[in-house]
Amino acid sequence: MALWGGRFSQDAKSCVQEYTESISFDKRLFRHDIAGSKAHAAMLGATGIIPKKSSRAIIAELGKIEKMIAEGKMEFSSALEDIHMHIETELIRVLGNEGARVHTARSRNDQVALDIRLYLRDAVDSIVEGIVRLQKALVDQAYANRKTILPGFTHLQHAQPVLFAHHLLAYVEQFDRDIGRLKDCKARFNVLPLGSGALAGTTLPIDREFVREALNFPEVSRNSMDSVADRDFACELLSALAIFSMHISRLSEDIILWMSQEFSFIELSDAFCTGSSLMPQKKNPDIAEISRGKTGRMYGNLTAMLTICKGLPMTYNRDLQEDKEPLFDSLDTAEGILSVYPEMIATMKTKPEKMLQAATDPGLMATDLAEALVKKGIPFRNAHHMVGALVRYCGENAKAMDKLSLEEMQSVIPDADADMLKLFSPLSAVTLRESYGGTGFKQVASQISAWKKRLGKKA
Amino acid sequence: MALWGGRFSQDAKSCVQEYTESISFDKRLFRHDIAGSKAHAAMLGATGIIPKKSSRAIIAELGKIEKMIAEGKMEFSSALEDIHMHIETELIRVLGNEGARVHTARSRNDQVALDIRLYLRDAVDSIVEGIVRLQKALVDQAYANRKTILPGFTHLQHAQPVLFAHHLLAYVEQFDRDIGRLKDCKARFNVLPLGSGALAGTTLPIDREFVREALNFPEVSRNSMDSVADRDFACELLSALAIFSMHISRLSEDIILWMSQEFSFIELSDAFCTGSSLMPQKKNPDIAEISRGKTGRMYGNLTAMLTICKGLPMTYNRDLQEDKEPLFDSLDTAEGILSVYPEMIATMKTKPEKMLQAATDPGLMATDLAEALVKKGIPFRNAHHMVGALVRYCGENAKAMDKLSLEEMQSVIPDADADMLKLFSPLSAVTLRESYGGTGFKQVASQISAWKKRLGKKA
Amino acid sequence: MALWGGRFSQDAKSCVQEYTESISFDKRLFRHDIAGSKAHAAMLGATGIIPKKSSRAIIAELGKIEKMIAEGKMEFSSALEDIHMHIETELIRVLGNEGARVHTARSRNDQVALDIRLYLRDAVDSIVEGIVRLQKALVDQAYANRKTILPGFTHLQHAQPVLFAHHLLAYVEQFDRDIGRLKDCKARFNVLPLGSGALAGTTLPIDREFVREALNFPEVSRNSMDSVADRDFACELLSALAIFSMHISRLSEDIILWMSQEFSFIELSDAFCTGSSLMPQKKNPDIAEISRGKTGRMYGNLTAMLTICKGLPMTYNRDLQEDKEPLFDSLDTAEGILSVYPEMIATMKTKPEKMLQAATDPGLMATDLAEALVKKGIPFRNAHHMVGALVRYCGENAKAMDKLSLEEMQSVIPDADADMLKLFSPLSAVTLRESYGGTGFKQVASQISAWKKRLGKKA
Amino acid sequence: MALWGGRFSQDAKSCVQEYTESISFDKRLFRHDIAGSKAHAAMLGATGIIPKKSSRAIIAELGKIEKMIAEGKMEFSSALEDIHMHIETELIRVLGNEGARVHTARSRNDQVALDIRLYLRDAVDSIVEGIVRLQKALVDQAYANRKTILPGFTHLQHAQPVLFAHHLLAYVEQFDRDIGRLKDCKARFNVLPLGSGALAGTTLPIDREFVREALNFPEVSRNSMDSVADRDFACELLSALAIFSMHISRLSEDIILWMSQEFSFIELSDAFCTGSSLMPQKKNPDIAEISRGKTGRMYGNLTAMLTICKGLPMTYNRDLQEDKEPLFDSLDTAEGILSVYPEMIATMKTKPEKMLQAATDPGLMATDLAEALVKKGIPFRNAHHMVGALVRYCGENAKAMDKLSLEEMQSVIPDADADMLKLFSPLSAVTLRESYGGTGFKQVASQISAWKKRLGKKA
Repeated sequence: MALWGGRFSQDAKSCVQEYTESISFDKRLFRHDIAGSKAHAAMLGATGIIPKKSSRAIIAELGKIEKMIAEGKMEFSSALEDIHMHIETELIRVLGNEGARVHTARSRNDQVALDIRLYLRDAVDSIVEGIVRLQKALVDQAYANRKTILPGFTHLQHAQPVLFAHHLLAYVEQFDRDIGRLKDCKARFNVLPLGSGALAGTTLPIDREFVREALNFPEVSRNSMDSVADRDFACELLSALAIFSMHISRLSEDIILWMSQEFSFIELSDAFCTGSSLMPQKKNPDIAEISRGKTGRMYGNLTAMLTICKGLPMTYNRDLQEDKEPLFDSLDTAEGILSVYPEMIATMKTKPEKMLQAATDPGLMATDLAEALVKKGIPFRNAHHMVGALVRYCGENAKAMDKLSLEEMQSVIPDADADMLKLFSPLSAVTLRESYGGTGFKQVASQISAWKKRLGKKA
Repeated sequence: MALWGGRFSQDAKSCVQEYTESISFDKRLFRHDIAGSKAHAAMLGATGIIPKKSSRAIIAELGKIEKMIAEGKMEFSSALEDIHMHIETELIRVLGNEGARVHTARSRNDQVALDIRLYLRDAVDSIVEGIVRLQKALVDQAYANRKTILPGFTHLQHAQPVLFAHHLLAYVEQFDRDIGRLKDCKARFNVLPLGSGALAGTTLPIDREFVREALNFPEVSRNSMDSVADRDFACELLSALAIFSMHISRLSEDIILWMSQEFSFIELSDAFCTGSSLMPQKKNPDIAEISRGKTGRMYGNLTAMLTICKGLPMTYNRDLQEDKEPLFDSLDTAEGILSVYPEMIATMKTKPEKMLQAATDPGLMATDLAEALVKKGIPFRNAHHMVGALVRYCGENAKAMDKLSLEEMQSVIPDADADMLKLFSPLSAVTLRESYGGTGFKQVASQISAWKKRLGKKA
Repeated sequence: MALWGGRFSQDAKSCVQEYTESISFDKRLFRHDIAGSKAHAAMLGATGIIPKKSSRAIIAELGKIEKMIAEGKMEFSSALEDIHMHIETELIRVLGNEGARVHTARSRNDQVALDIRLYLRDAVDSIVEGIVRLQKALVDQAYANRKTILPGFTHLQHAQPVLFAHHLLAYVEQFDRDIGRLKDCKARFNVLPLGSGALAGTTLPIDREFVREALNFPEVSRNSMDSVADRDFACELLSALAIFSMHISRLSEDIILWMSQEFSFIELSDAFCTGSSLMPQKKNPDIAEISRGKTGRMYGNLTAMLTICKGLPMTYNRDLQEDKEPLFDSLDTAEGILSVYPEMIATMKTKPEKMLQAATDPGLMATDLAEALVKKGIPFRNAHHMVGALVRYCGENAKAMDKLSLEEMQSVIPDADADMLKLFSPLSAVTLRESYGGTGFKQVASQISAWKKRLGKKA
Repeated sequence: MALWGGRFSQDAKSCVQEYTESISFDKRLFRHDIAGSKAHAAMLGATGIIPKKSSRAIIAELGKIEKMIAEGKMEFSSALEDIHMHIETELIRVLGNEGARVHTARSRNDQVALDIRLYLRDAVDSIVEGIVRLQKALVDQAYANRKTILPGFTHLQHAQPVLFAHHLLAYVEQFDRDIGRLKDCKARFNVLPLGSGALAGTTLPIDREFVREALNFPEVSRNSMDSVADRDFACELLSALAIFSMHISRLSEDIILWMSQEFSFIELSDAFCTGSSLMPQKKNPDIAEISRGKTGRMYGNLTAMLTICKGLPMTYNRDLQEDKEPLFDSLDTAEGILSVYPEMIATMKTKPEKMLQAATDPGLMATDLAEALVKKGIPFRNAHHMVGALVRYCGENAKAMDKLSLEEMQSVIPDADADMLKLFSPLSAVTLRESYGGTGFKQVASQISAWKKRLGKKA
């Protein structure tokens, strides 16, 4: 008979127990459940709602139960539904009536709302640390490649030469906003829900401020119905993680492209690749591929959580039990990505000569020529047309732009001068781009050192 | 060293093995992997690609390995990546060179494409059976309630009286289309991919027709690249399951409403409800709630799979390894729903008197009055306006429509006659609706008996 | 010939123009595009990159073009692709060479990245104002119903009596977090991207600080590739709006339930309902239903945006043109919801007597009885069991809990006393729940006045 | 006052009309609405429910209204909500009482269920035709490139040489399954719902068989509640279109890769590319990019529809009005893709020499060497290891595999023979792969001719 079963004349069927249980996945909350129960029991004792002695006994026994679970000695059973019931049942088994006092002035609704917040606080911190590790690996590669030039791409077409460091730092920026989202989300859910009861508060003289302090929450929730009913924080966190994985999918796409025989811009360490069961020559960038693929589950978990919440009436509905698996899966996935990505980046070897060679097509410096014409007073749109015509001229005459004589160039662009013949080197192109945030050497060096400082502090 | 590791100078790191392994979830494919390997080995022997003796030895040993895994005696390790490698490794461990012949003319790409199709064939059949069980439970309840009248709702407002049986049969229709989608999907993926190799076929003289027959596929795939590259069938199946769960979410919503104190139309068996850890009086329709919530994961899994496939270049990419978990989860979820829903419906008690009472508001017969006016030659839109005015009259004068005198009615609707005063009973309303597919008693009785016949055949 | 067409020997086909155009939806950016171009032109003049005279002429003409578009006098054509090209083309048409200078040191990539941020800044502010209006309407209803008691629900089952005001304030809390998410998002995208060029910055001596100040951005973007490549802010904004709509869907569900004949807790104004083309008596809460339905498009737009970004290589890819329609649609949808919801809430009539009646089932006070037993020293879990047994006793003996004699109660709960017989009133239940955040009268009154203060400041 | 407004004392506010109107998007249903009304009116006349004269007048006038709308002469207004009300209002305006008879025995619920099915029937047919055009373009390119060899990719790494024709035919297979899904979907929704009334059927003696035949439906719906309540067909259709767009996204990815400077496998016609506003040299494969991006809206529309339906109680709820925009948008998007893709494929130029060159790395023939060893009796797994070791040997000694002497090869693979030195040509690799469905010349030629036959019939 379940702990809540006083009014029932019939036990739940075993298929129902199997179907509704959550112990198989919520057992990972045990530390946080116990931490919450300890604080709650301490408050119950301090306010005199239960005897001090009971409070002390409960707290002590909870410590033992935590150890027992950590050591794998608790047997889990779907008949006991969830982690809360497992722990309370064990408490009562050992302490009898003392243990039967722990659930005073509390419902599983506010209890689980507490547990999940405690758990997520830790989880968010851990993921932020992992992202910082990844940022550091990127910044280190950027530093190592601060002179490496490759074509910057738009539309997967060569656009203009950029520094490889600049390319990597773009990802560092993106991951920084991911951290921002995670922290904002944490700030929003870092509010104590315990004391909300099932939905209405309690008739007993609880002290929520006591629990808040014990569990280190900045704030206490202001509305008991809201506290047990809403899972917006789960949606928000899953969204932040989905966006993070979107960034990972883009970095992964770049890595996969760079590793292809066609690009050959980098070589990943054997330790981060796998082979083929059939083709002996294969070396595949599986980490990057799987990580790109994991975007799927991240998006899927967000969709799941949003769907679960859609159209539910107030307050708690059992549908919300389904919040945990998507949360855990997305958090685990992020941890998984961060367990391999920083080192894969760190051990990635670049092939600067291949990159540079790809950037030498003089067409990539077409914009520089147009901008040089602007410097001579030609309106940009006209300059753009002239250079476009020159590109076409070169195509039709099978000539490279950097192989034109001044006369030829002037035949299409009358204002062209000899200096303009020197623009067609990637080195020149990068050197000239010293606008703030641009790919110029100084700009990038200054960004690298700013990031080093920033990340140093964070770690 | 992995089986594919000949060209590698360095093993994958253990964090990489952990990150890329699939054995934790693809081990459930072992029976289908072995069935596929047996057919493959038989073909290799029959065509002389490998010695007949090797073929026989492999087939025999695969039988033993299947038993070993079924009995839980195989140790799984992420170092061996996946179920295919576990089985091949064990085969080689026991048989040596004989075992080393099994992977001839095969890649993991076409092997896993085969395994998943074999698995899904069985899974789809099993879910179809489950849905038929649910349909039967609904039809039985419909039969038991073939005289029970309740208000039909649109906009969650009382609309017109209907038979409870009619309401339940609407779900039977919906589940029938779900079965149709599942079967269409199966017909599309029920095609042998083995023999496609990694992507290009093989230089060895395989006999795909032999394998097709052995594994009971209606067809052999026509393009080796397509066979290993596409997962459209996974998207389609997840979509069919998502739509099924959408139907379940609607049925669940109805059940939750009917169980509320406000509706009180049904009572679920205690065995299919749970209580509250705080509130002793609670009896909650948790099964229906959780099932409605599980729509989330069903939609999420579909989103995941579609996302995984988006924008992948030809042919196989490791991202596709991520196809299995959403598939397994949606299939398991459907099985879970079907493990409880049929019996919950079967044991559900209706409260016909409550339902009927809710249907007695004469306003629900307003359409009948308008249609009676139509029978007297009044254009429907005019009749609708007249009856609308009568509704307003009743509201303003706080009178029930069925309590009006003929004079009162005629003061608003001059064409009203005495027979129209008799329309305001739910029994009349249902009795009169004998248009095909309508809620009339005969219509519904005939649908019930047609469904009994149809479902009898299916089972 | 397109403005970028210098190198092309063939125009895009008209079907291609139709397919790739964005003018049909990005024309709404015209004010922001022009504001950006004015600031850009002013900077080009101030730095001497273009003549001051040109700068002034461009700025003046842009003002005229803005007026022209606002008055509906510009003809839009898919041959000119997008709003940027329409405006630049018009500028050149009027000013000739002067106009041809505006696009100096700028690409459409950074231009559109600017326009969309300017647009979203305004849009977010407007939606925050709308949500505040909705919060005020809720707080006003809460104040008007500060004494109205209804059953609080969990699992859509009566749980404990709560104040209607408390229920409404739960939504005020949720909408407040929505505002928080919108503001955090805005803070993250409120960064000047202009000056990033196509992806690499520019060789011209631009002054991004000048533009930043002119357009009132707190910061300048630090990495030109990141600035044009990422759309994480669009994902984040769509996510915040999706969560807002999730909250609306829950409020809508409550309203739909309350309006049903079964609940009859409220009456919506005729002005916020519609009728039926067939059934003359119908009055449907369509606003709430459509709003619940619009959750679909909000979730869909988020899915769309996340999908678009998945797996794109650096930097800009034309896929990103698809960012605007989901953004605009979600913003418009939020505006639509906020155009009707505040007044629908304000004009909603409550039926306090119906609500109270629904809350009178003594079973709702079962927890209070258990907590009263706790006050007498009985461990809560035991008290819960005793009260559960009492609930069962009442069910089996068809007795209401508040109709029991003390003797009867003591036959099941020996520790019961006479005071406990008085607990079975909803008024008592609410009065006793004065824990912080609970539904007690004082608690709720204090929350109402705190919200009035807070919202007063915001408006 | 709305047509349904008899019972209302107050009109809907204009903000409410704006918010709830659907005329802005459902007006495109006018032809199908009118076709449905004509059939309905004919039936009403034939059964004597309305006078034959009225029936004839209605049918004639509907014809005029259709013309009027087709010529853009109807003024649409949100005050009249939807296309049904616009047409009925116009009918009544012209015909008076005769027109007021058209809505007899019909509700907007079954009317719109009919309209959308009629519309979707045509839309599905049109998209199937478009896909066939695309298949033909692919088959034609395949035929033109039946001798063109390029590397087949797995993990975006060179795997084995394949025919470009084979690669294209893989897409033909995928699009064929898309057609299958569309046709299965159509078969499921091609059922007459009219006659279901609002939800319960009607008391009038309608003849649904008459309407079925007039509108060419194979079947009549069996349950009136199901007919108006469910939108599973919309979910299914959006899913089929989402999967189609997934295939398009993959083909697009291939095209984008092939067009990159790194691959240089193809050249798209200028007419299917666009340039850059800044960089004069750019020629971007925008069609492919936008098409890949449009996967987002296709997935988003599916998510929207599934979300809308989740958890709705029976039967019609106004949420379902939201079904049309995602449907129309996905259908329009598919039409858009199909308006450009066939010709883009048809005008695409291949660069066979570049492709062949990429396929000449002897590593791609490693599997052939392993399979040659198998033919000499060596177990495949051993052969795989030997060849893997050879790959490593070549890597460490910086030697190409096809440049090894027999002695060198035998130093790693003792069983090697002279014939094996001849395996390292892509031509040999393709020639040898004549297993069914493989990339061998004969296989592919036979598939091309089979497809030509199949597609000829379809068109």
